[in-house]
Amino acid sequence: MDSYHGYTGIVAEMLREAGVEPGDVVEVVRGDGSRFKGVVMTRYSLSEEPFLILKLDNGYNIGIRIDESTIIRKLGRVERGAPGEPVGLAEEEPQPPEEKVFIIGAGGTIASRVDYETGAVKPYLDAAELARNIPELFNYASIEAKQIFSILSEDMKPWMWERLVEEIARRIEEGYDGIVVTHGTDTMAYTASALAFALRSLPVPVALTGAQRSSDRPSSDAAFNLISAVLAASKAPFAEVVVVMHGETGDSYALAHRGVRVKKLHTSRRDAFQSVNAPPLAKVDPYKGEIVLLDKPLRRRGEEELRVDNGFDDRVVVVKHFPGITAELIDAALDKGVHGIVLEGTGFGHISTDAIKSIERATDMGVPVVVVSQTIFGRVNLNVYSTGRLMLKAGAIPLEDMTLEAAYAKLSWVLKRASDLREVRRLMLTNLAGEISGRHSLRLYTHAQYRGW
Amino acid sequence: MDSYHGYTGIVAEMLREAGVEPGDVVEVVRGDGSRFKGVVMTRYSLSEEPFLILKLDNGYNIGIRIDESTIIRKLGRVERGAPGEPVGLAEEEPQPPEEKVFIIGAGGTIASRVDYETGAVKPYLDAAELARNIPELFNYASIEAKQIFSILSEDMKPWMWERLVEEIARRIEEGYDGIVVTHGTDTMAYTASALAFALRSLPVPVALTGAQRSSDRPSSDAAFNLISAVLAASKAPFAEVVVVMHGETGDSYALAHRGVRVKKLHTSRRDAFQSVNAPPLAKVDPYKGEIVLLDKPLRRRGEEELRVDNGFDDRVVVVKHFPGITAELIDAALDKGVHGIVLEGTGFGHISTDAIKSIERATDMGVPVVVVSQTIFGRVNLNVYSTGRLMLKAGAIPLEDMTLEAAYAKLSWVLKRASDLREVRRLMLTNLAGEISGRHSLRLYTHAQYRGW
Repeated sequence: MDSYHGYTGIVAEMLREAGVEPGDVVEVVRGDGSRFKGVVMTRYSLSEEPFLILKLDNGYNIGIRIDESTIIRKLGRVERGAPGEPVGLAEEEPQPPEEKVFIIGAGGTIASRVDYETGAVKPYLDAAELARNIPELFNYASIEAKQIFSILSEDMKPWMWERLVEEIARRIEEGYDGIVVTHGTDTMAYTASALAFALRSLPVPVALTGAQRSSDRPSSDAAFNLISAVLAASKAPFAEVVVVMHGETGDSYALAHRGVRVKKLHTSRRDAFQSVNAPPLAKVDPYKGEIVLLDKPLRRRGEEELRVDNGFDDRVVVVKHFPGITAELIDAALDKGVHGIVLEGTGFGHISTDAIKSIERATDMGVPVVVVSQTIFGRVNLNVYSTGRLMLKAGAIPLEDMTLEAAYAKLSWVLKRASDLREVRRLMLTNLAGEISGRHSLRLYTHAQYRGW
Repeated sequence: MDSYHGYTGIVAEMLREAGVEPGDVVEVVRGDGSRFKGVVMTRYSLSEEPFLILKLDNGYNIGIRIDESTIIRKLGRVERGAPGEPVGLAEEEPQPPEEKVFIIGAGGTIASRVDYETGAVKPYLDAAELARNIPELFNYASIEAKQIFSILSEDMKPWMWERLVEEIARRIEEGYDGIVVTHGTDTMAYTASALAFALRSLPVPVALTGAQRSSDRPSSDAAFNLISAVLAASKAPFAEVVVVMHGETGDSYALAHRGVRVKKLHTSRRDAFQSVNAPPLAKVDPYKGEIVLLDKPLRRRGEEELRVDNGFDDRVVVVKHFPGITAELIDAALDKGVHGIVLEGTGFGHISTDAIKSIERATDMGVPVVVVSQTIFGRVNLNVYSTGRLMLKAGAIPLEDMTLEAAYAKLSWVLKRASDLREVRRLMLTNLAGEISGRHSLRLYTHAQYRGW
């Protein structure tokens, strides 16, 4: 199709008619009365959706949907290096970004729309369609995209983690500079952890992102998060699996959380994701295109080759201690033939004394019981109290300061590569992807009630 | 025994010898070289432990252990109303506090000591012994105490909640002005919730407290928390079940959290307890003896009669959704003959689509499945996504913004008083003790990563 500085169809037609070139300052008035003023940018999108890309005064690029009722008026031209004007915008032929990012779609709210028949939100959008609707993405990288699942994330299963690992590995081998995975937020922390273990070493970043509100809602966080994730995937100096989501409620910055450290800690807020027992890896500013490291990367971009060790056991269960018949639930799981148990104990990782015999039974059956804490923050320690010592004697494996999600994904992964309980223990207690850390700084835990009293 | 202004034994002897009366300023030099200066207070303790109570310059009372090597030197006397001096200290016979508080001991770290044979911490101290070791308690109330359990809180069971309810009711009927329950921190949120439902209305406060470090360690938070709890029990204007624990890491103030709103969110920090989805009920300052309300009390002191509705079903289980075989775990629980299931879903409360048939099966068997979220903060909502709607159709009962602990205790309680699923649903969704709230203020959720970047 005929292209005019990357634009096609009605947008190309209108720009030609008004004599507008990239670098020109224009005013756009839409049929709904909304007005925009900014510098016209060359378009690098793969999409033919009728969007005009403008750089606004604040430096932020937006895509404006154009139709027959839109008026585009040329106001002037940005001279190169003119005082107070962005430098470089007036170049006749700005180079498209060199980086190539591959977006893998795995469903979730970010790819969902309201189903007007039922009123409920359903997975719907294709990853490529999603990208086409957010033209700013193309400022940071050329984008290709493929949808591999169209599910809500509560339906994510370990075999799908394996498919994701395969797809990511394939695209990295094809030479992409970064991978973005769009994913439902509910189980994103589990998937991010799983990817971090199976992708044993990476040459480029893998950034998971999603949305707390579906993309067809005005309040959606989809565009902000996806732009931030593409920025991280294309430019970040680290080569790790991260989750990139809103850093606070406003559209100010995103945070890149290490996959094995992140948790969704609110049902609905944009800033629901937090790093637990570790600082976030980086602050991501999608306006300035800036990434600021907040922690030391474990692997830097380009330092290591891709190394994949795929495969997860899907018969691991989570059992949470509660003040009743925890023992019966552990026994029931063992009767069902599970291969591993992640025990979410109380406090330092305890369960009731009467349930310790069920840990013994699991150990006798060769079923590992690993222990994290339901307090979310802090570190399990089975050496302090008598109960903990009895649990250790029964074979429980306390997982230091690991999140439940990382513990679950790791045990599923370890069970495919350890031949006995001793080897399970050794691997579970070896820090592979940042899931275990040393002493914590006090600032890693914030009492929600600190503010105001 | 011969008493000198409340003191007995060696302390009485030394004070008499030095001609010291309450209201006198003294210097105390102990055998270990430590020195204290302050105003001697009359002692109201039931204990005969050799402690001298001094009011320090900062207004805080401390108890100093006296032995043969201690020197007590009289420096002068506080004149009533002298400028810059505390008023009222020089009264010849200050009145003992009128309030009477009953401390019920239920074990936990606060009543634990290191077992020097094994090195592990074990429950040990009797509640009365505990109180005797913290003479400051007696500044706020006269104290009586009784140990009813000597366990670590992971061993707390629903039948023990019933015993606690009986003991609390009995002491309230005897005319105490407030009840303190010393309890392990691990499952304190479950017990506090259970008490809040069974003690349907209260004329006085019931304050649970505990410690993150055992009482025999220098860094123990036991004394600070117990003094704060006694202050709340004796003086607070509300008549609710609360958890009183450190408000921040330092010894500056405690917070009284509503029992149905509190969660332990850190394995080891002093400020591990937070109110979730609600502000704390009050700030408690054990130095000034001050209680500042942060939320509106549901019941005020003395407004209502005691009304007890005791009894808990002990066959309720918690099942947490994870990206695998959640359905098998629900089925296994049903096969074991459980009476109720608290489902900790992802995000808005979801579980995987393949597990919804297990909710249906539970409903068909008359077993209620109530839903909270594993995100901790926020509110479940099964109306937004298609999965949630299918869960509702299968009979799931979404519990708004209730904590897991409140949901577990409430379902255990409701099952003893509802005859069918409809009645269970109605009671679970009726706000009985502040466990369900309306719209949340933004400040109720704090991103741990806000500070510093």
